[in-house]
Amino acid sequence: MKYGFGVDLGGTTVKIAYFDTDGNMLDKWEIPTNTTNNGENILPDIAASIQSYISANNIDRNTLIGIGIGVPGPVSTRGVVNKCINLGWGVFNIEVELSKLTGMPVQAGNDANVAALGESWKGGGQGCENVVMATLGTGVGGGIIIEGKALAGVHGAGGEIGHMVLNRDETDTCGCGKRGCVEQYCSATGVVRIAKQFLAKSDAPSCLRSMENLTCKDVFDAGNAKDALALEILEQVYAYLGEFLANVCNVINPEVVVLGGGVSKAGQCLLDGAKKYFDQYVFHAAKDVRFALATLGNDAGAYGAFKLILDN
Amino acid sequence: MKYGFGVDLGGTTVKIAYFDTDGNMLDKWEIPTNTTNNGENILPDIAASIQSYISANNIDRNTLIGIGIGVPGPVSTRGVVNKCINLGWGVFNIEVELSKLTGMPVQAGNDANVAALGESWKGGGQGCENVVMATLGTGVGGGIIIEGKALAGVHGAGGEIGHMVLNRDETDTCGCGKRGCVEQYCSATGVVRIAKQFLAKSDAPSCLRSMENLTCKDVFDAGNAKDALALEILEQVYAYLGEFLANVCNVINPEVVVLGGGVSKAGQCLLDGAKKYFDQYVFHAAKDVRFALATLGNDAGAYGAFKLILDN
Repeated sequence: MKYGFGVDLGGTTVKIAYFDTDGNMLDKWEIPTNTTNNGENILPDIAASIQSYISANNIDRNTLIGIGIGVPGPVSTRGVVNKCINLGWGVFNIEVELSKLTGMPVQAGNDANVAALGESWKGGGQGCENVVMATLGTGVGGGIIIEGKALAGVHGAGGEIGHMVLNRDETDTCGCGKRGCVEQYCSATGVVRIAKQFLAKSDAPSCLRSMENLTCKDVFDAGNAKDALALEILEQVYAYLGEFLANVCNVINPEVVVLGGGVSKAGQCLLDGAKKYFDQYVFHAAKDVRFALATLGNDAGAYGAFKLILDN
Repeated sequence: MKYGFGVDLGGTTVKIAYFDTDGNMLDKWEIPTNTTNNGENILPDIAASIQSYISANNIDRNTLIGIGIGVPGPVSTRGVVNKCINLGWGVFNIEVELSKLTGMPVQAGNDANVAALGESWKGGGQGCENVVMATLGTGVGGGIIIEGKALAGVHGAGGEIGHMVLNRDETDTCGCGKRGCVEQYCSATGVVRIAKQFLAKSDAPSCLRSMENLTCKDVFDAGNAKDALALEILEQVYAYLGEFLANVCNVINPEVVVLGGGVSKAGQCLLDGAKKYFDQYVFHAAKDVRFALATLGNDAGAYGAFKLILDN
């Protein structure tokens, strides 16, 4: 049996996991992400952590196939990172650099794409080669898997489905500077934004009115408790989500759509709600798509990262 | 030097071309598509035509690499056609059948995807491995090329970008049965539809008012002659086109967008008009995209079909 490492590099912590080539996660741990001095210590810290894990566990280096890593920014298919703003990084070849520091082959990818690869391999999309994953968190991230491989795009911006335009008449500005992006409607933040708009434009009674710091979970909880206004709000969210996912599937024609991130904790009602509108908006030839929840949580990135080096 | 055939199978005619492996089209001809008896003669007719071409030109069969074919319907990655309605066909493996009839390897793909492959190889997208092609004709077809390969999708419906939803408030029905599809705004038919709406909702003078059977070309001609209402109509068309293409590029992140079909005969003004709105709607990381016109016209399908077998 051979082994390797999957690394999920985030702005605050680095998650590192040790896998066998059957895809079993044998161990995992975290180290802090040191972003001082333009993040110059990040790769040396990762290399040192992996090195000491190898030594501490008497791992034979000949059994190691290498390291896969997901990074929070665009990565070209040749391993060049292009300004990971959260890390302070400029432009350089992360595969070459981390390989120099560890003496092992390295494969890198964008974190959202890598998480999608993880979910398609061992999570909600298991067994599928063509997967659309949407991560509905504070923002909306995405990853597209085509024939088992993440769609990186020519500048590493493939699968940035959270910034498709959903409403050209929007007056609020998205974090990206545009207006009307998917992220403004289908993220946790977006759900709260829509809820506040509904609360402001009517006098309908709702348990949501008494809540001070309204959260996305509050809206779904109120919906589960049959609060009429909350159900109306969620219907609007499902309509946006269904239309958005139909448009992605009209381009990609995947087997499965996997929903992850905080909003996906709403569970089956989110899948059913989105699917109802999806069926209305999807092109007939692409309509045969399964909707599933992500199952790997915070481990998706490490699984996908290891899959990168496994497929290399 | 080796040689092969590219076949573009349409509902009325079959275009067949003979290529060398450098991609030079050495000869081309057409035969009618016989759709009687559920199209049972189509493949035998193609095989006979290729056979007689080989005999008439004393071509050594050892120099032939095979046949690529584009068909007007979904084709799975394993060569199974799934109901080409225009041809009367059901479900069968076209690669296996045509190979039996010709004794040569066969690779098949959807016609729009194959035309996109042709344009990415020898046409408007030449030199690019990541291409979005939109064919703006009577309808809107599309093809997506990723790392040199057409995105087929799991049911052969990949790249059906003409049926993305562009306007959820549309009341007219698209040919596909949905409402608000790209095809209703960005096809030649769509341009005329928008023009008629503009003419009906205002009394503004326009040379278009005197035209009996208004065509897409009339609208562009009037725009070139600085007809104010025509320019307003075209601005609306460009806005729809730019938003639609931005949404595709937010998913795919290609190097180049190639526009083909009848509408693209408008030329540079179409590229410039669409690009202006594209820049407004595209995600910043995917914004670096060249817009180009298709250059292969009706030969794109044959070029792409031959490329299928060349890459096999």
